[in-house]
Amino acid sequence: MYSHTIYIRVRYAETDQMGYVYYGNYAAYYESGRTEAIRDLGFTYKELEATGIIMPVAGLEIKYLRPAYYDELLKVVTSLRQLPDTKAQFHTELFNEEGKLLNAGVTTLVFVDAATRQKTMMPEVLRAKLAPYFKAH
Amino acid sequence: MYSHTIYIRVRYAETDQMGYVYYGNYAAYYESGRTEAIRDLGFTYKELEATGIIMPVAGLEIKYLRPAYYDELLKVVTSLRQLPDTKAQFHTELFNEEGKLLNAGVTTLVFVDAATRQKTMMPEVLRAKLAPYFKAH
Amino acid sequence: MYSHTIYIRVRYAETDQMGYVYYGNYAAYYESGRTEAIRDLGFTYKELEATGIIMPVAGLEIKYLRPAYYDELLKVVTSLRQLPDTKAQFHTELFNEEGKLLNAGVTTLVFVDAATRQKTMMPEVLRAKLAPYFKAH
Amino acid sequence: MYSHTIYIRVRYAETDQMGYVYYGNYAAYYESGRTEAIRDLGFTYKELEATGIIMPVAGLEIKYLRPAYYDELLKVVTSLRQLPDTKAQFHTELFNEEGKLLNAGVTTLVFVDAATRQKTMMPEVLRAKLAPYFKAH
Repeated sequence: MYSHTIYIRVRYAETDQMGYVYYGNYAAYYESGRTEAIRDLGFTYKELEATGIIMPVAGLEIKYLRPAYYDELLKVVTSLRQLPDTKAQFHTELFNEEGKLLNAGVTTLVFVDAATRQKTMMPEVLRAKLAPYFKAH
Repeated sequence: MYSHTIYIRVRYAETDQMGYVYYGNYAAYYESGRTEAIRDLGFTYKELEATGIIMPVAGLEIKYLRPAYYDELLKVVTSLRQLPDTKAQFHTELFNEEGKLLNAGVTTLVFVDAATRQKTMMPEVLRAKLAPYFKAH
Repeated sequence: MYSHTIYIRVRYAETDQMGYVYYGNYAAYYESGRTEAIRDLGFTYKELEATGIIMPVAGLEIKYLRPAYYDELLKVVTSLRQLPDTKAQFHTELFNEEGKLLNAGVTTLVFVDAATRQKTMMPEVLRAKLAPYFKAH
Repeated sequence: MYSHTIYIRVRYAETDQMGYVYYGNYAAYYESGRTEAIRDLGFTYKELEATGIIMPVAGLEIKYLRPAYYDELLKVVTSLRQLPDTKAQFHTELFNEEGKLLNAGVTTLVFVDAATRQKTMMPEVLRAKLAPYFKAH
């Protein structure tokens, strides 16, 4: 398993009139978690796109347990429980400052050749970075 | 079953550099679908909030099959397959102008008393509007 | 002068915890106003991009007089007071259902060659559509 | 003058199909700059709202010189050039990693009593924090 943690401050822009973070805005928080998880491997999603691979989202599942509020510093834990092949499943857990779980989700992204828009395998450069975290015991 | 259809034009703001509608932005499209589905019953979500009931989202599941592009006029079909009680499960299907299914999702909302922030039953005013669509055969 | 009117329903996603439409979200409403103003000429911004011209924004000025609220059906009046050359200045006025002016803004867009990212003139196809509205008296 | 600097990483969500950060999304970056500028004074906008004062935006002016791109770490410099009274004018300058100015803007916010929605003076607690930066020489 590969796991990475970041912190995100809730913007006023992201709240709604209920006083909660709008349910659709967590998708961007999850994205930031994934981006930094990849960066921490010594690679970036930006570099991935530069090699001609894009990663559109194929699935999103979120369970919302508690709301996040304006100005909270959220803890975003992103993990890969399996080594990706043609797709990558990122698990995300969001916690508030008191350590309470706010929501948990799974985002499935697929590797796609930007030119042909056809599915492809995870590029070797990324596989090499991730493989050590998924070695058989 | 209760079902309702609206059309949404994709804004430039909603695209990302992949040229697709950003995966998190569909949540707002789904919301518009739900809002208009309720309005078509002769009631509005705004009126619901005025009675002291809010409907935070408890769950979201989306399967993304094809991307939506800038300026497309999307068909958004929203349906309730069961009469809500303390929660409402909205099914949403998005189609492009060629009639292709782009994504399908389920959003689960709960009825919450705005003052106490405790779960509550669907208000009678809304139940009365919806019940005829779920009559036993 | 060329002028065009559309109506936009405020989404819950666009409100903030103050209960107002977030100040940054009007930019997307203005964009919809511009897009439909161009479509009404028998041309689309999408087609413009397909010819290799993009229109990044060079300036935005908004005066906010009154807030817009959730579910209001806003009237968006978009106008060009001068025939564009290398840039286009769109004036936007937003009104609520009571006809009260909510905000007024000016967005300046420039014509840019997508390949070279250099400024260019308004394409002839668009100039031909707009010119009749700016004929000398 | 009071000035404060933060850094913001551009999210994929904030780009558009032009490959630039969408022009309306800078409003949220500016907001983050203001929020952290106030926090650095030993006070928070959240605490301000808790005292019954809200700060809706009355004006926004942005000059866009260069685009910001996905994954760039932007430098956001926020400054107050005058001690606020019933309104506060925040100046924001955004720089990319090469130190190039991307855009510069002024956001005018007014102090409003949340209960009456009437304009009011800057609360004393905030005035006391800011005044030392604007002392006469």
